Amino acid sequence: MSGRVSLVGAGPGDPELLTLRAIKRLEEADLVLYDALVDPETLRFAPRARRFFVGKRARRPAISQDAINRLMIREARRGHQVVRLKCGDPFVFGRGGEEALALAAAGIRCEVVPGISSAIAAPLLSGIPVTHRGLSAAFVVVSGHAESAYGPVLRSLAPASATIVVLMGLANRAAIAFELLAAGWPPQTPSAVLIGISHQGEESWQGRLDGLASSAFNDEENLPGIIVVGAVTALAGIIAAKESEQDTARTSASLG
Amino acid sequence: MSGRVSLVGAGPGDPELLTLRAIKRLEEADLVLYDALVDPETLRFAPRARRFFVGKRARRPAISQDAINRLMIREARRGHQVVRLKCGDPFVFGRGGEEALALAAAGIRCEVVPGISSAIAAPLLSGIPVTHRGLSAAFVVVSGHAESAYGPVLRSLAPASATIVVLMGLANRAAIAFELLAAGWPPQTPSAVLIGISHQGEESWQGRLDGLASSAFNDEENLPGIIVVGAVTALAGIIAAKESEQDTARTSASLG
Repeated sequence: MSGRVSLVGAGPGDPELLTLRAIKRLEEADLVLYDALVDPETLRFAPRARRFFVGKRARRPAISQDAINRLMIREARRGHQVVRLKCGDPFVFGRGGEEALALAAAGIRCEVVPGISSAIAAPLLSGIPVTHRGLSAAFVVVSGHAESAYGPVLRSLAPASATIVVLMGLANRAAIAFELLAAGWPPQTPSAVLIGISHQGEESWQGRLDGLASSAFNDEENLPGIIVVGAVTALAGIIAAKESEQDTARTSASLG
Repeated sequence: MSGRVSLVGAGPGDPELLTLRAIKRLEEADLVLYDALVDPETLRFAPRARRFFVGKRARRPAISQDAINRLMIREARRGHQVVRLKCGDPFVFGRGGEEALALAAAGIRCEVVPGISSAIAAPLLSGIPVTHRGLSAAFVVVSGHAESAYGPVLRSLAPASATIVVLMGLANRAAIAFELLAAGWPPQTPSAVLIGISHQGEESWQGRLDGLASSAFNDEENLPGIIVVGAVTALAGIIAAKESEQDTARTSASLG
């Protein structure tokens, strides 16, 4: 069998949200290169693989993208089955495209296995549909890492014409809220912050756009945070409320 | 065990792109209500369930949303495990939010299981990353079904500030291209149309934004079509070209 690299999406965290194809690739893998936020349970699907952590952690030097690319190319040339396991979906941020191009340039067989993106799934698991008839027929997913990324989109988009989902923007939430308010979004627009959804230590905030800047959290350093702005955010209360009643019912049922 | 409804995302088509949780729910199901475009292979994961097709087909009357809601509620009240199996992700178009709200209003236990959305996966499987460092730090997913849905977004968004992904907009591709050109998007913006990706009968078109209106297809009636506009679209050629070489290499290897 000749070597190959699979860029595999691990989904938002919970191993039950892996796809069958992701699990197959893990089972076949000789080597797994995995990111921070990949659940350790996920790696149990790759019992015969060597496993290297190549993610970033706060205050520690990360392995460079170039070094990761070189390692994947070398191992594939040795005939190994390499899995590059990435949080969420490989092509939603996270440099999957760059890795695919580097592998293509080196003539290495490469496939990309889509994963559940937390851009859609973190709202969903919090009871927020990113689209909803009568409320939103569009959603925007934007990196909140730098003003150059989110500024042009948030400043131009007609207020309330789409649900906004900001990834990696928690540290910039005051600036992000300001951009939207300055662009004419109503201050009372329902908004949410979702931290660590599908991980241990979930936290969330629900409120209005004009309260987003002053929202506060216990652990926003180590877990991924997502900002959602738009009318659909208000549905979380209705759907989530039912879920807690259900949890109670489920507990009673299993006790009874 | 008390009754429950699971709104389950089936992903873009290929059963290998189901999640483990989706498969568990299908295995436990007493009743599966499934949409058009759900692969028949997927239903094999639900061997003990009754299966009802509740999707829309061209020129045939569809079962109303209200009738689907009533059926789910009745079956859950009888103590059944109901799976409402939807293409892609339940909360990306497809009325999952409406169903969740109807179930909540009726006091029925409900969970939502995310699925791989073809908004991200159809481009990915065609070699197009919806985000890519230096090319796109945002993407917009919009319904192309009606001008009232896509108009406000496409007219306002700063040209080239995000990748545009239009679902259900193939019939309106001329109007969609016109909106973007009128808003100042460069005529040479790389664009693609992806039809039936992850289904039998895949077709695709690559070109420039000013050629989108006159793109032509064999079977755009029965398969889902996705329009992608933005610089990332040009990467498909590089990644896809390598993939065909790889296929050749793979075939040679298996023959050798």
